[in-house]
Amino acid sequence: MKNPNIVILGAGYGGIITAVKLQKSLGVNEANVTLVNKHSYHYQTTWLHENAAGTLHHDHTRIPIKDVINTSKINFVQDTVTEIKPSEKRVMLENGDLMYDYLVIGLGYEAATFGIPGLKEHAFTIGSINSARLIRQHIEYNFAKYNNEADKKEERLNLVVGGAGFTGIEFVGELANRVPQLCREYDIPREKVRIINVEAAPSALPGFDPELVEYAMNSLEGRGVEFKIGAMIKEVTENKLVFEKDEQREEIPTNTVVWAAGVRGNSLVEQAGFESNRGRTPVSDDLRPAGHDDVFIVGDCALLINEETERPYPPTAQIAIQMAEQTADNLTKLVKGDKHLEPFTPDLKGTVASLGHKDAIGVVFNDKKLFGWSASAMKKVIDNRYLLKLGGPGLVLKKGKLNFFQ
Amino acid sequence: MKNPNIVILGAGYGGIITAVKLQKSLGVNEANVTLVNKHSYHYQTTWLHENAAGTLHHDHTRIPIKDVINTSKINFVQDTVTEIKPSEKRVMLENGDLMYDYLVIGLGYEAATFGIPGLKEHAFTIGSINSARLIRQHIEYNFAKYNNEADKKEERLNLVVGGAGFTGIEFVGELANRVPQLCREYDIPREKVRIINVEAAPSALPGFDPELVEYAMNSLEGRGVEFKIGAMIKEVTENKLVFEKDEQREEIPTNTVVWAAGVRGNSLVEQAGFESNRGRTPVSDDLRPAGHDDVFIVGDCALLINEETERPYPPTAQIAIQMAEQTADNLTKLVKGDKHLEPFTPDLKGTVASLGHKDAIGVVFNDKKLFGWSASAMKKVIDNRYLLKLGGPGLVLKKGKLNFFQ
Repeated sequence: MKNPNIVILGAGYGGIITAVKLQKSLGVNEANVTLVNKHSYHYQTTWLHENAAGTLHHDHTRIPIKDVINTSKINFVQDTVTEIKPSEKRVMLENGDLMYDYLVIGLGYEAATFGIPGLKEHAFTIGSINSARLIRQHIEYNFAKYNNEADKKEERLNLVVGGAGFTGIEFVGELANRVPQLCREYDIPREKVRIINVEAAPSALPGFDPELVEYAMNSLEGRGVEFKIGAMIKEVTENKLVFEKDEQREEIPTNTVVWAAGVRGNSLVEQAGFESNRGRTPVSDDLRPAGHDDVFIVGDCALLINEETERPYPPTAQIAIQMAEQTADNLTKLVKGDKHLEPFTPDLKGTVASLGHKDAIGVVFNDKKLFGWSASAMKKVIDNRYLLKLGGPGLVLKKGKLNFFQ
Repeated sequence: MKNPNIVILGAGYGGIITAVKLQKSLGVNEANVTLVNKHSYHYQTTWLHENAAGTLHHDHTRIPIKDVINTSKINFVQDTVTEIKPSEKRVMLENGDLMYDYLVIGLGYEAATFGIPGLKEHAFTIGSINSARLIRQHIEYNFAKYNNEADKKEERLNLVVGGAGFTGIEFVGELANRVPQLCREYDIPREKVRIINVEAAPSALPGFDPELVEYAMNSLEGRGVEFKIGAMIKEVTENKLVFEKDEQREEIPTNTVVWAAGVRGNSLVEQAGFESNRGRTPVSDDLRPAGHDDVFIVGDCALLINEETERPYPPTAQIAIQMAEQTADNLTKLVKGDKHLEPFTPDLKGTVASLGHKDAIGVVFNDKKLFGWSASAMKKVIDNRYLLKLGGPGLVLKKGKLNFFQ
């Protein structure tokens, strides 16, 4: 009997953890495991907002795949997936194709722009190392231009973030730290620069405890962030954003709109013919879509209902990592001939949102609320535990957030 | 008798050294000395190419005026000169005007674009802290954009420098050091990036010893600089440069053209009615224009013929500093009632052109040629001696180039 081919698509949280666990649980004589990824590196999506603001260098956020994958055990193919063909058990790449016996889809998210005119064309999204450093450079370039032009264009200094959810709030927190540095660098008075957060829902951080939301907004407003809550973005152009609030239209002159208000699963998943809702495919509790026993979906492309809340589990790193661990266990069973798969049982440890380097809010350990330094420290502990899982203590020392007291 | 008003326009090499010397040689009861400058800082024009390339931060290049001027002895007015009215002995500023008894004009250079179509609109010039950091950011932004765009635009990675004179050569030397860093930062293969120097004259570094020119070109070509010598720039647009060489036209796709091939004196000087040639006013050997005994011109706006070579002294920092020292001495005499002024006698110590951090060429001490590390070290010695003159040992420690062995 030939060794089964296991193909893992994507080296985000879901894909890379699946691969790292499989390289421990399966021998090279048991299966051929191949990890496919567009870049030669894995990156921590949850840190990209810091790279985009310019408060953390992107080399801190990315990790060469070969640093955590033993390529004598796992094949690594650097290529871009163009199509998944489940009926042929085949994946098409830009420069080749791969046959699989088992497929793990960990292709992550895309921005969902909900048809808002101009958003797709003119707004930035924080989706990758490349897009994050472009945002950083775009902001800096506009500060440099503003400083140097005779006819000062205020749209260069109005930084607008669409969405006050988790990512939007974390990003404005970093911007609030970054802007004073940029003002010093480019000799621009701080009061000329606006950081504006536009949120359609009636509250920032929908779903968070109101006390934490208030703490977060106070912290951010204290550092100069303006909130437009209950404000629907109507249009984005090259140099303005239009929103409507209380039936009034308002325009903000800006050439920097960062859209952090909606994500969807990867389009390749729906193009492959899997049932899906915005690129998220309903999966059974062993993370397989109905009718596809050879396919596992982990992370943002998987749609699984939390029975307690009757809502889907959110597309977070925490869930993706746990899905990946379960999938690696189940694949190991299948390869070893055990058809009895274990269900995915998430262990929700809480959520901490950073508000910039020294501040954060969160809920951990069954509804314990955290604020300020303790929340910020907890956030770093969570990040470091992930690195420990991914690459051991060496990786924590190399890429960890060890600046607890700075 | 009232104390005479001495007004110094510009805090470049000429203006600031005049002010620093006067604050030592004249008491507050002898004259009112006022220094006018657009910015709150002096900067070293000869280092700007490093700021523009991104190899040196501009804060290293600029020095707060209040760090070297004692404002209990010298008035400092931060404003922009809009007009000089010699007949009224008055200087108009954007936000006021000043009467003078003696005027020192140290207004520096502007780019001369010789009517080449598109050059003024689309090329950058290295003229100030603001314009230098804009060039740095422009280059970085284009690297970031190139990395992130699906349809890669090669004009983003072709860096064209117009002119292989002193400044042009020093700038491509810095770019040759900077580009590999940028390639690492933005994941771009080095071979995709071109650094192209276009020079109309039949040789690079016209006027330099041919052996030094050859050394310089070899050093730069070895680090990937392409030279187009004897090539006339015909046109610059938003995304290309056209030149003609050997009666052939050639186009380079580029959105980064830095013009380093021509300077002229400040236009305000000719607008004031002084006789002038490209903004440089002929001055007698005591640096006063004919018919204006109350005006001294130092630095790039002064046109003085070197009788040995029968050519004008070049607009260099070295000459500007020596002119300023002589002018401060002569003003001191005038204020103290001595009408017998001393002539300016330049002491040419040589010239060293940097080719990047570790390399340089130069001629010093009566035609001694220098290459490589020794020339590079000499360049730093010259820079540090200037700082010593300007602000004493403390300033050398703070802003000096002390990295001889790195």
